[in-house]
Amino acid sequence: MGREEFLRALRTNVLGRRKMHPLMVLLHEGELSREQLKSWIVNRFYFQENVPVKDAVILSKCPEPDVRRLWISRLLRREGMQRELGDVEGWVELATAAGISRERLMGSRVLPGVRFAVDSYVNFARTSSWLEGVAASLVEQFAKEELLARIDAFKRHYSWVAPSGLKFFMSRLAAVDESNEVALGIVMKYCITRKAQNRAVSSAVFASDVNWSINDAIYMDAFSQSLASPEREKGRHQTAS
Amino acid sequence: MGREEFLRALRTNVLGRRKMHPLMVLLHEGELSREQLKSWIVNRFYFQENVPVKDAVILSKCPEPDVRRLWISRLLRREGMQRELGDVEGWVELATAAGISRERLMGSRVLPGVRFAVDSYVNFARTSSWLEGVAASLVEQFAKEELLARIDAFKRHYSWVAPSGLKFFMSRLAAVDESNEVALGIVMKYCITRKAQNRAVSSAVFASDVNWSINDAIYMDAFSQSLASPEREKGRHQTAS
Repeated sequence: MGREEFLRALRTNVLGRRKMHPLMVLLHEGELSREQLKSWIVNRFYFQENVPVKDAVILSKCPEPDVRRLWISRLLRREGMQRELGDVEGWVELATAAGISRERLMGSRVLPGVRFAVDSYVNFARTSSWLEGVAASLVEQFAKEELLARIDAFKRHYSWVAPSGLKFFMSRLAAVDESNEVALGIVMKYCITRKAQNRAVSSAVFASDVNWSINDAIYMDAFSQSLASPEREKGRHQTAS
Repeated sequence: MGREEFLRALRTNVLGRRKMHPLMVLLHEGELSREQLKSWIVNRFYFQENVPVKDAVILSKCPEPDVRRLWISRLLRREGMQRELGDVEGWVELATAAGISRERLMGSRVLPGVRFAVDSYVNFARTSSWLEGVAASLVEQFAKEELLARIDAFKRHYSWVAPSGLKFFMSRLAAVDESNEVALGIVMKYCITRKAQNRAVSSAVFASDVNWSINDAIYMDAFSQSLASPEREKGRHQTAS
């Protein structure tokens, strides 16, 4: 597949399989309560914390000097060592703008489903080839429209979050095209068979599943109270068998 | 902690933290459609497939001959090499009774959130001590009431599932006390400090979180269509950023 055909296959497989996640629909439409939006911020921080680790794992497995150099410049960006706000500090700033202190953010218990999904992502990088690890980040090819919708939603619906909270999204937005170009360039150069290209698409689908699953866990935690009536649940407990 | 105090701490931490999962509430009350119950069967099969692997990981890490021998008798049971139906074959029989062929069961794509949770469980066994691995199975101390409620629900509400589908639950029910006694005995013998006992409780909580997260993913898949209106979702897609 040439570049355009590959990008079409990526779009079909990553976006075409399902609609937008209900949590994101609600976020964009301003229908999340303060507590629900804060839960999203607190839980998604675990993803933000682990993405740089995942990227370091990829670096540690890559024998190609040109890829390592490209990947190090990605790390510099995502660790906040260049112009952009880093993934961790940027999210701390968002949390602070939403009234969540750094201490509370760092000390919060993350939802199990979020932990499982994010840990699986780091583990995917550890157990797959470096090229599949790089390819997983192709999911970000579609981050731009989500970032735009999110920034818009924060401005319109969540004005109780201080404007400084948007700095991280703006910073991501400014860097996303260049960052995507790097990942796509590596994948197009090193995936030289159709099979390798298909595996690259599957890796991006995997990363999309991680995001989906994070949102599942946050959604269920936010709404499970209302998903079964209180009377029904009385005296019942979760068990395993 | 003595045995009774330990069991109380286990109950408080495993069951006391939250109510029954909405998916289990609906299953017990007969409110799952055929497709939803089948989805539970198909997806939970991934858990059934991996529990024996998790148990083998624990065995492979244990330097205590007496524990290994006890654990091997557990493996014999769960692999279906004794009186009981094995975890895998037993579940195949349940699926067959629900009109899902072995081929369809084996070939089905498991929901991402289910995969992440189950993989995290196997990974927990790989990265924790053998004793914490054993302790995780203490979550089954509370399996009996769930099994009873489940058998009752199948009989009352899901009579379209052939009665042979209940054989596995019956078989689990017959073995669960003995199996629990083995795990509890090992934990009481080898967790000789309060700290180790607390870690044992945490391990069981972890296993309970795995079950919870599996149910989250199945619930969201079953109901996400109705959680956001079709009009809202039109033309929207899940993206990552």
